[in-house]
Amino acid sequence: MPELRKDPIIDRWVIISSERGQRPVFLAEAAEAPKPGAICPLCPGNEAMTPPEVFAIRPASVSSPPNSPNWVLRVVPNKFPALRIEGDLNKHGVGLYDKMNGVGPHEVIVETPIHSQTLTGMDVPSFQNLFLAYRERTLDLLRDKRFKFIMIFKNQGSMAGASLAHSHSQLIALPIIPKRLSEEINGSLNYYRYRDRCVFCDIIAQESEEKERIIYENEHFIAISPFASRFPFETWILPKVHEESFLYSKAHDNYFAIADALSVILKKQEKVLNSPPYNYMIHTTPIEMIDSPYYHWHIEIIPRLTKMAGFEWGTGFYINPTPPEEATIYLQEADV
Amino acid sequence: MPELRKDPIIDRWVIISSERGQRPVFLAEAAEAPKPGAICPLCPGNEAMTPPEVFAIRPASVSSPPNSPNWVLRVVPNKFPALRIEGDLNKHGVGLYDKMNGVGPHEVIVETPIHSQTLTGMDVPSFQNLFLAYRERTLDLLRDKRFKFIMIFKNQGSMAGASLAHSHSQLIALPIIPKRLSEEINGSLNYYRYRDRCVFCDIIAQESEEKERIIYENEHFIAISPFASRFPFETWILPKVHEESFLYSKAHDNYFAIADALSVILKKQEKVLNSPPYNYMIHTTPIEMIDSPYYHWHIEIIPRLTKMAGFEWGTGFYINPTPPEEATIYLQEADV
Repeated sequence: MPELRKDPIIDRWVIISSERGQRPVFLAEAAEAPKPGAICPLCPGNEAMTPPEVFAIRPASVSSPPNSPNWVLRVVPNKFPALRIEGDLNKHGVGLYDKMNGVGPHEVIVETPIHSQTLTGMDVPSFQNLFLAYRERTLDLLRDKRFKFIMIFKNQGSMAGASLAHSHSQLIALPIIPKRLSEEINGSLNYYRYRDRCVFCDIIAQESEEKERIIYENEHFIAISPFASRFPFETWILPKVHEESFLYSKAHDNYFAIADALSVILKKQEKVLNSPPYNYMIHTTPIEMIDSPYYHWHIEIIPRLTKMAGFEWGTGFYINPTPPEEATIYLQEADV
Repeated sequence: MPELRKDPIIDRWVIISSERGQRPVFLAEAAEAPKPGAICPLCPGNEAMTPPEVFAIRPASVSSPPNSPNWVLRVVPNKFPALRIEGDLNKHGVGLYDKMNGVGPHEVIVETPIHSQTLTGMDVPSFQNLFLAYRERTLDLLRDKRFKFIMIFKNQGSMAGASLAHSHSQLIALPIIPKRLSEEINGSLNYYRYRDRCVFCDIIAQESEEKERIIYENEHFIAISPFASRFPFETWILPKVHEESFLYSKAHDNYFAIADALSVILKKQEKVLNSPPYNYMIHTTPIEMIDSPYYHWHIEIIPRLTKMAGFEWGTGFYINPTPPEEATIYLQEADV
C-alpha cells in the first residue's frame, strides 16, 4: 500500500509509492520511450488492455457499449496508480512522524483516439470535451468524503514525465491539499483579509492596464506571463471575472472560452519553443472551499526547457533567464 | 541589471536574470556539453579566462602569486553571474508587485585542478579544503550588510544544471532568504515553541532508535534517508549534536568529519546509481540568526534521476517511487 508521509519540518506531504515500479527506480531504467511497433494500451481496439472505463464521450450518432472502440475521449483508472482506490486512510503517527495510507483514485484521461495526435493538433470542441471530462470525473469523485482535493494535470512528452506517448491527462483525488495549493490559498486569503479583494482579480486589473505581460485574451479568459515567472515562458490562464472553481466556470458556454484560450497558448508555445515537453495543472478551490471570494481558479502551463532546472527543485529558489515581458512578446507574435 | 521579483500570492522571490544568455533560452540551445578539445576556463594555466580569483588554496611548499597555476582549489567570480555584485537594492513596488535589483556576488568554487576529476575521485583532505573555502568566502561576504543569506550549492552533471564540465560548486549571496529555507526555519521554530526542542535533534534521536533510515555515521555526523523523501535516494547529512551553522561546525577538526561523511555518501550514490547527476545544498542559518536553538544545519543531496520529475516542479507535490527504507539498504550495502 502506498503511503502519504508528512515532512516533520515543512508542511508538505509526499506520496511514497513503491508499487509503481517493482524495484527502486534507477536512472537508465526509468520510463523509456516505447519501442516502435509496441502496442499502445490507449489506442482504440485495445480497450481490454486498460482497466474498464469510468467515463467516455462517444459520438451521439453511434450506439456503442462501454469499452468498445467508438470513442472520442475515454477515462480509465491508471493501471500503475500512485495511490490505491480502496481502504481507510488510517492516519497515525510514528514518533514525531505523521503518515496515512495512500488512498485515492488515479485516472487517465485519454484525450484523443488518434495515437499520434497531440493537443495542439486538436480543435476547440475536443478541448471542450476534455474540460467536460475533467468536470464529470471531479463531480463523481467529490462524492467520496475521504478526498480533499482533485488534482488535474498533464505531462506532455517524456521529459515532462509522461510514460505513455498517446496524449493523455491525469487526475488524482487526494486526501490532503498539495502544498503549492495551500500556499496559494493562504496567500490569497491574507491578501483578501487586508484589502477585501481577490489578489488574482487585482493582478488581472494591473496586467490589463500595464499591457506588458498579456499573451492572449478572449471574452472570458486572459493568458499572462506571470510577473514573477519561475520558468521561461511560464503561462497562466485565468477567468477574467472572479470564479473560484473550474467546475462552475461559464458552464453556459460549455468551456468554449477556456478551450479556446488553452488551445491558443499551447499552439503558440509549440511554435515558439519547437514543440516543447510541458506540464499543466488546474489550480482550483479544494472541495470544501467552494464559494471562496479570495481564491481564483486558473491553469498554469510550464514548458519544460530542461538543462535550465539547476537546483531549483531542491531549494525552492528559481533563476529565470527569460524575463516574462520578453516571453510575452515572442508568444504574442507567434501566429497560430 | 537582473531583478528579484516577488510572487504576489506566495512568499517566493525569483531571480529574473536576462543577462546570462543574450536572448531567451530555448530548449535546444541551452547549455550543451563543451566540444572535445574546447579550452576549459577552469583548468590550471587558463586563469586569465576567469575574473581574478577571490580565494585560493595553494600548497604551502610552493610560493606562487594569485592567478598563477599552482593551486589545489580556486574561487573566482562567476563570469555569467545570476546577480550583479554592485549597486543598491532599490526595493520598490509597482502596483501590487514587489521587486528589487538583483544584487549579490555569484562565485564559482573550482574544487580541483584536474579537469576530469569529480568529487568522488577526491580524498578527504580535498573535501576539507572545499568546506574551508565555503567558510572563508562566507565569512568575507558576511561583512556586506546587504546580504541575508549565503547559498552554497553544487550541480554535478549537465542534467543537474552544470554548464561547465570541470568540477565546481557555487555560492550566491542573496538579499533575501530563499523560500525553502524560510519554510524550514518557520517549521522548526514552530516545533521549538511547542516542545522546546530542535526538530532535527528529535529526528536524529528517532532515527538512531529505529535504525531504518541511517545510511552512514561517523563520530560527528549522521547521514539519513529522510522519512518523507521527495526523491529516490535523497540523503541528508546532519551534525549529531545541535549546531545552527556550518561556519562554526566542529571547527577544531577542520571539517574532517563532514568531509568524510559527504565523501562516503557521494561515493555510495555513485556506485548504486551509476554516477548520477546530482545537486547538493548547504542548509544553514541565515546571517542574522546565528545562535539559533531551533535550526540545525545540514546538507541535502539529491541525485537527479530524471524522467521521474513529472510535474512536481510546478505543483510542489512529490511522488517518490523508492521508499527511503529501500534506498537506505542499497546505500548501506554499497562498499566504498
